[in-house]
Amino acid sequence: MTEAPQQGAILFYSEFDDPEEWRGHLRELAPWLDFRVWPDVGDPADIEWALVWKPPPGELRRFPNLRLIVNLGAGADSILADRTLPEHVPICRIVDPEMGRMMAQFALLAVMRHHRDFVSFERAKRQAEWRYIHPKPASAVRVGVMGLGSLGREAAALIASMGYRVAGWSRSPKRLEGIDTYAGQEELGAFLARSDILISLLPLTEETRDLIGRDVFSRLPRGAVFISLGRGHVVDEDALVEALRSGQVGEATLDVFRQEPLPKEHPFWAMEQVMITPHLASVAMAATSAPQVVENLLRTRAGQPPLNEVDRRKGY
Amino acid sequence: MTEAPQQGAILFYSEFDDPEEWRGHLRELAPWLDFRVWPDVGDPADIEWALVWKPPPGELRRFPNLRLIVNLGAGADSILADRTLPEHVPICRIVDPEMGRMMAQFALLAVMRHHRDFVSFERAKRQAEWRYIHPKPASAVRVGVMGLGSLGREAAALIASMGYRVAGWSRSPKRLEGIDTYAGQEELGAFLARSDILISLLPLTEETRDLIGRDVFSRLPRGAVFISLGRGHVVDEDALVEALRSGQVGEATLDVFRQEPLPKEHPFWAMEQVMITPHLASVAMAATSAPQVVENLLRTRAGQPPLNEVDRRKGY
Repeated sequence: MTEAPQQGAILFYSEFDDPEEWRGHLRELAPWLDFRVWPDVGDPADIEWALVWKPPPGELRRFPNLRLIVNLGAGADSILADRTLPEHVPICRIVDPEMGRMMAQFALLAVMRHHRDFVSFERAKRQAEWRYIHPKPASAVRVGVMGLGSLGREAAALIASMGYRVAGWSRSPKRLEGIDTYAGQEELGAFLARSDILISLLPLTEETRDLIGRDVFSRLPRGAVFISLGRGHVVDEDALVEALRSGQVGEATLDVFRQEPLPKEHPFWAMEQVMITPHLASVAMAATSAPQVVENLLRTRAGQPPLNEVDRRKGY
Repeated sequence: MTEAPQQGAILFYSEFDDPEEWRGHLRELAPWLDFRVWPDVGDPADIEWALVWKPPPGELRRFPNLRLIVNLGAGADSILADRTLPEHVPICRIVDPEMGRMMAQFALLAVMRHHRDFVSFERAKRQAEWRYIHPKPASAVRVGVMGLGSLGREAAALIASMGYRVAGWSRSPKRLEGIDTYAGQEELGAFLARSDILISLLPLTEETRDLIGRDVFSRLPRGAVFISLGRGHVVDEDALVEALRSGQVGEATLDVFRQEPLPKEHPFWAMEQVMITPHLASVAMAATSAPQVVENLLRTRAGQPPLNEVDRRKGY
């Protein structure tokens, strides 16, 4: 690591993350850092770095000495959608090993909750009914993970370690220990036909937008479970509503949506077979990701490119 | 294994397990076995073995040539409560490695569901409300497992592997890798004071009956979660209702009860912070436990004691 500079200001903006948590963890590693929480920015010329999640459009153009934009998360699509970002400033994302673990555990929680019939038991409970359902072994449940980036791979491995039969699908062929892999449009049908529980961990790119729609749902086994964890715009929500209404998709857990917060009038809210969580399957944790943030502040100060830089053209 | 006999009849009785599943798996291993499902018993003198879960009282006395009673589960308390069993016939329980794994995974499911705020999100969903709660890392959640028999140990290890801070309590001191252990009445208070989530995996014995009552709940951190998986009679349910009403216990997942099915008028049904499952956290699976059943049929035919014999005096 480069030698610590004596001062420098970082701007913090997030409606979801706790600034005090970040301030505390960054202070431990970089006591010299001047941590400013939007809108208390002070002199815009002081700001060298921005640590942000979905900042107000245009806001980051106000800082003439900005060296780096740190995206408070792994998915870069929301920050790249902002066409007002200063073009010459590099963007990096947080690649926290704990985020992968947290996502994998959330995926496992959702899988187990459906597998162990909690949706039925929740319904039975509202009716004060003791309704026994003999459990199936995990080995009788086929889970399919769409998207085999670092999050998808870790989720697939964790779920497989519990005895589930796991397959993965990605656009280009991949090999994974203990996981059957399928690739490309040609193998998508076979992958879907064997997935009792389908998990989306796809990133949002031009190719994945709207990918999970009527055609995908119709090729799942009837009554399959759908778990949406990657990005909301990957899913055609009207097609999902229709598949849930017809019973083609039996149950769902949805953490991401095309519009967030999910509008109050959306039909998902009223469907008792659908679990909704407010986009928090995995979040960057200050404790575990502060070190890589500080490393990148120092690298950009020293004129080096940041780690985990986002390629604006590729979209990730 | 002893050489296979040419014939022999086994009686099957369970209101929970599927006889056809058992018939199929036993047939593969012992095609010579005559599998009879109660009440179609045939000549009572034919029956050499009984594979049963909570058989009707007195029923097993009808079979003069009975060699062995196989309890369709790990807990022997329900079969031992039946004072009409023939005294000279040995009883064995099923110790299926998959049952331990299934129980551990169910315990993990319950822990993660509470930790990841699903109780709050289920409530928010009924109100069509997007209510963000920043997740805590698993390392900030302290789980306490009461009962460190084979089920408790396996659950503790699995939950710890996910990053939770796990401690265990048992009546006599035990050492476990990676788990803080507490023992006896003297250390119970310290164990409870550090348990944000308390899991009961205690067997039912004279010493554990009613053990988890007002005193135990009052020593947990306020708003703690209680997960009841061992045996219903270990828990003072009136004290639990009171603790839930006062908020001393914030949420609960209950799989076992003093009376099963849980009576329709029980206050647990109406508490939205309580999840109820109908005693199926872990069940014996025909596929994985048929081999040890067949082994015990052959052993008793050969005049040997069965494996996993229940000590009627000790109660397990």
